[in-house]
Amino acid sequence: MGWTSRVRSPNVPAMFQNFDDITRPEDGPPRLAALREAMAEHTLDMLLLPRSDEYQSEYLAPYAERVAWLTGFTGSNAFVVVTGKEAGVFTDGRYTLQIRSQTDAGAYTALDMMETPPLAWALERIEKGWRVGVDTSLMSLAQKRRWEAALTKAGASLVATRGSLVDALWTDRPERPRAPLSLFPEAYAGRSLAEKLALIRKKMKDADHLLLTQADSIAYALNIRGADLPHMPVALSMALIARDGPARLFIDPGKIDAAVRSAFSGAVEIDPEDALLPALEALGAEGACVMIDPTSCNAALADRLAASGARLVEAEDPVVMLRAVKTPQEQAATRAAHLRDGAAMVRFLAFLDREAPKGRLDEIAAAKALEGFRHDTGALKEISFDTISGAGPNGAIVHYRVTQSTNRPIRKGDVYLVDSGAQYEDGTTDITRTVAIGPVDPEAVRCATLVLKGHIALASARFPKGTPGAQIDTLARHALWQHGLDFAHGTGHGVGIALGVHEGPVRISKAGMKPLEPGMLLSNEPGYYREGAFGIRIENLVLVSKAEAIDGGEEPMLGFETITLAPIDQRLIDPALLTKEEIAWLDAYHARVAEEIGPLVDGEDRDWLGQATRPLT
Amino acid sequence: MGWTSRVRSPNVPAMFQNFDDITRPEDGPPRLAALREAMAEHTLDMLLLPRSDEYQSEYLAPYAERVAWLTGFTGSNAFVVVTGKEAGVFTDGRYTLQIRSQTDAGAYTALDMMETPPLAWALERIEKGWRVGVDTSLMSLAQKRRWEAALTKAGASLVATRGSLVDALWTDRPERPRAPLSLFPEAYAGRSLAEKLALIRKKMKDADHLLLTQADSIAYALNIRGADLPHMPVALSMALIARDGPARLFIDPGKIDAAVRSAFSGAVEIDPEDALLPALEALGAEGACVMIDPTSCNAALADRLAASGARLVEAEDPVVMLRAVKTPQEQAATRAAHLRDGAAMVRFLAFLDREAPKGRLDEIAAAKALEGFRHDTGALKEISFDTISGAGPNGAIVHYRVTQSTNRPIRKGDVYLVDSGAQYEDGTTDITRTVAIGPVDPEAVRCATLVLKGHIALASARFPKGTPGAQIDTLARHALWQHGLDFAHGTGHGVGIALGVHEGPVRISKAGMKPLEPGMLLSNEPGYYREGAFGIRIENLVLVSKAEAIDGGEEPMLGFETITLAPIDQRLIDPALLTKEEIAWLDAYHARVAEEIGPLVDGEDRDWLGQATRPLT
Repeated sequence: MGWTSRVRSPNVPAMFQNFDDITRPEDGPPRLAALREAMAEHTLDMLLLPRSDEYQSEYLAPYAERVAWLTGFTGSNAFVVVTGKEAGVFTDGRYTLQIRSQTDAGAYTALDMMETPPLAWALERIEKGWRVGVDTSLMSLAQKRRWEAALTKAGASLVATRGSLVDALWTDRPERPRAPLSLFPEAYAGRSLAEKLALIRKKMKDADHLLLTQADSIAYALNIRGADLPHMPVALSMALIARDGPARLFIDPGKIDAAVRSAFSGAVEIDPEDALLPALEALGAEGACVMIDPTSCNAALADRLAASGARLVEAEDPVVMLRAVKTPQEQAATRAAHLRDGAAMVRFLAFLDREAPKGRLDEIAAAKALEGFRHDTGALKEISFDTISGAGPNGAIVHYRVTQSTNRPIRKGDVYLVDSGAQYEDGTTDITRTVAIGPVDPEAVRCATLVLKGHIALASARFPKGTPGAQIDTLARHALWQHGLDFAHGTGHGVGIALGVHEGPVRISKAGMKPLEPGMLLSNEPGYYREGAFGIRIENLVLVSKAEAIDGGEEPMLGFETITLAPIDQRLIDPALLTKEEIAWLDAYHARVAEEIGPLVDGEDRDWLGQATRPLT
Repeated sequence: MGWTSRVRSPNVPAMFQNFDDITRPEDGPPRLAALREAMAEHTLDMLLLPRSDEYQSEYLAPYAERVAWLTGFTGSNAFVVVTGKEAGVFTDGRYTLQIRSQTDAGAYTALDMMETPPLAWALERIEKGWRVGVDTSLMSLAQKRRWEAALTKAGASLVATRGSLVDALWTDRPERPRAPLSLFPEAYAGRSLAEKLALIRKKMKDADHLLLTQADSIAYALNIRGADLPHMPVALSMALIARDGPARLFIDPGKIDAAVRSAFSGAVEIDPEDALLPALEALGAEGACVMIDPTSCNAALADRLAASGARLVEAEDPVVMLRAVKTPQEQAATRAAHLRDGAAMVRFLAFLDREAPKGRLDEIAAAKALEGFRHDTGALKEISFDTISGAGPNGAIVHYRVTQSTNRPIRKGDVYLVDSGAQYEDGTTDITRTVAIGPVDPEAVRCATLVLKGHIALASARFPKGTPGAQIDTLARHALWQHGLDFAHGTGHGVGIALGVHEGPVRISKAGMKPLEPGMLLSNEPGYYREGAFGIRIENLVLVSKAEAIDGGEEPMLGFETITLAPIDQRLIDPALLTKEEIAWLDAYHARVAEEIGPLVDGEDRDWLGQATRPLT
């Protein structure tokens, strides 16, 4: 299965990224047959299997990759519904091609969850009296409620199974991860553990206790980091914060060393994970008022709490907004991380320009080289997601993950797209560049210029307080729209500080109704994809900041500070399509890249940087 | 009170618009004292008085102007809360100045309902056991539910009064209007009565009956128009549409003539208004399933229906979306209305340019002249709202209504803003132009040019199907935002075809989450307001249409067709701030205005038009 190859030994130059096909479609049918037998034993007519864990994590530790084990599909968004006759595997449009290649079409029906929601598909099949099984620890309370209401209306019932049924069949299932905890330096956080707990307690309102179940919320709240999950430096654990008492962290005690224990002293008590349920039941017995977030707390826990007598206060996890607005110290830390990462990117882009035209690079070699340059910084903790390294038509697959079987040489005339990021102790990065390998189709240049216009419109936007992400999203698309083009993904997502590369609650997209606030860190990544031909995306991270006052301006406006620093390929720009203001933005950005990254690179890389950041016209 | 002066006799050249101060602040205190006595008789601790009628109309017939009678405040958005000690009059930011001048500050506290919602204000005062009275026929079901839930939680109760308590005190209260119905020509509607009823019945789903309570929904559904309300050619009535039976119109039979009766024959039965309640109770008795829109059906009716045993199906009034998407025939009709209205506007703007610099015009004279030019078309049925005629600082008051006491001369150096519209048999118009009276402050020119940039960005936008109004709104603001400026109102509202000038459900504003669809008619009206100095707004109506395919375009895009035709003042444009595409849009628009309106005006007006529509540079 290759799951363990993600764990990097300090002595072996293994990659974080794995390019193997780690599942095989042919394993799917026998495993599905075994699952149906288990369903029959439990007298279940239907089984639900969300791709999730007890913490509702986006990235899963190997032990929780149940959907991949069962179906072969490894995409990050999936939901499986199995009946006696059918098995639907649902994902979104990013994975349309991947799901077909990874699953056995005889056993599994691949479905787009936007077009056909799993619940709607299930309801078309459910008959009166059906028992529908699910491990409710893999569903949020809100999700379980939606299913339960619909099933009840249809005369069926939701049956909470003990474990997911897959667990018992998966004989060589990996162990739960046990990576050690480390402290997140207060110099980066800008807030001590005590300050954070005080801020959180202030947001607890009427609740006596707050149950935190998201790994990144706990990491943020307690100034700790871990290494239990791929791509995200967090530890699997849960936490209970008393308003008028201590915080308790429920975690494998083997993960805790003396330094952490000392930092927690007097503020955070440590208990083993299996002490959580008894603790919740004790709170229930005393009729305590416990705050949970129904969109992230798993339903098994919430139901247990309610059943034992606790009063639930349902509200957004109060850490979510705290975490989204970065402190000045967090901003400084991630700026430093971006400078380091920018130098690695420049070395990679210079290498690519030297080597790719010789015809000796392929997508995997490029991704390995990029991870190597990041490794050379001496500070790389992980990559923040699997590098998307796509040449020519592979660049048009928005969430392309290169494997040995899809690997494509990078040839002259290709448009090459590389979307990657790193986890450092002081920050998380996420950058996309699109590069012309020798002369390319002028149509690609035209489209890339329109994408750049959108990127610049967003980067240089001023907007009033209270403006929601949906309104800003328009700026990234307007130039494309005017030419009859668009892209089918959001323009920006929140990013953590040495935490998740995808972080809520704000996003820049049609559905982003939350207003942007100073201190939020987001991606700015418009793109354009021509199926079978090329893909273009230009992504920098931006901090929401107060805009400088200007002559004649009245409203206090917000704007963005771009913190990602690497050249944007000028060979993919048609200057005739840019306004003089857009050219001025690009030249100023490149001058800043040259000034800030120049001192961090040497020799031919430095020469390359000078050339790549020259004024456009 | 002057209410009846709105009714125009064909032989008297009276204006639709009235410039008198029709209420007096000093009437407020004694009326409030009388109301408090009535509250005491009914043992009420608090009384709610929404500015509304049984139909939840935006424009009220004089008999329903209870808030104006009680408080003096005549704004279109108001809610009054009276206790034994206090009386809060709530409105929005558009009326901040007006409410202060029209109400007695000793008796009434003027409040902004965005900052202090009436419910929140009431809850701060309510004590356990309080009885809070309201005429529930003046509240939507949804609104009543919100109040009832909050009051119950606070230990108080909502008491439905018989009539509003004001009614009994208002001894010279006007009669309910009894204007005759007329048929809306099928040639304009594009759908016969039978076709419309069939379309509506299709949307009734499981419901046996549909209760329509909004005057414009009924007018649209039955291809009729009326004259019961100011500004909106509709009749006060209610309708019940059976899925498998006739439609019934509950209306004063005196409003119906032989032509209407014949058009209704076999499709619509006519009953007096007081037959509605017995009809609803009969439906209740047979356990019928009745569809109502909880956001527009008044709570008294809905409660009566439910109490009599009917099952309520709550859904958006199915006419709302039908009405919003204009048929090709409706589009043609309103284009003709806009051509006629454009000619009247051109005559007015030419007149203004001739007369205003002589210093003999004031705001009222200008508004009268404009109504006169519209009257000269021979087709004017009503003005679609009171003309906003604001010179200099008055232009900065967004919903300024000029009266004798606020009237201001129009002087050289003034920026003059005029927002007006007409009701014709074939369409409803709404246009704003801002005019420089002689040379004006260059700062006004700069701001007007930024507003124009936003207007053009919206008018020329292409966007994919499914784009919500909130995303389009950004385009109208971007140029202002980049200069640190903004405007505090929405960019666009829906407009009817010989119906309301404000029509749901789609709008172009931060909160507009509904997608725009081809055939929708909206306003495009960015503005900018400098308090105490000047106001700028440029408003045209636009039809959402399929955008022409362009070279290299892939997505089928939507766009706008501008249907309002009148010159935009070039003296308020700084060409140096416009791109060549923006100048090309303006020149093409002006060429179209010259070509289409030119043949409709004569002599010096035609010369003026030629000059006003010359190319910008």
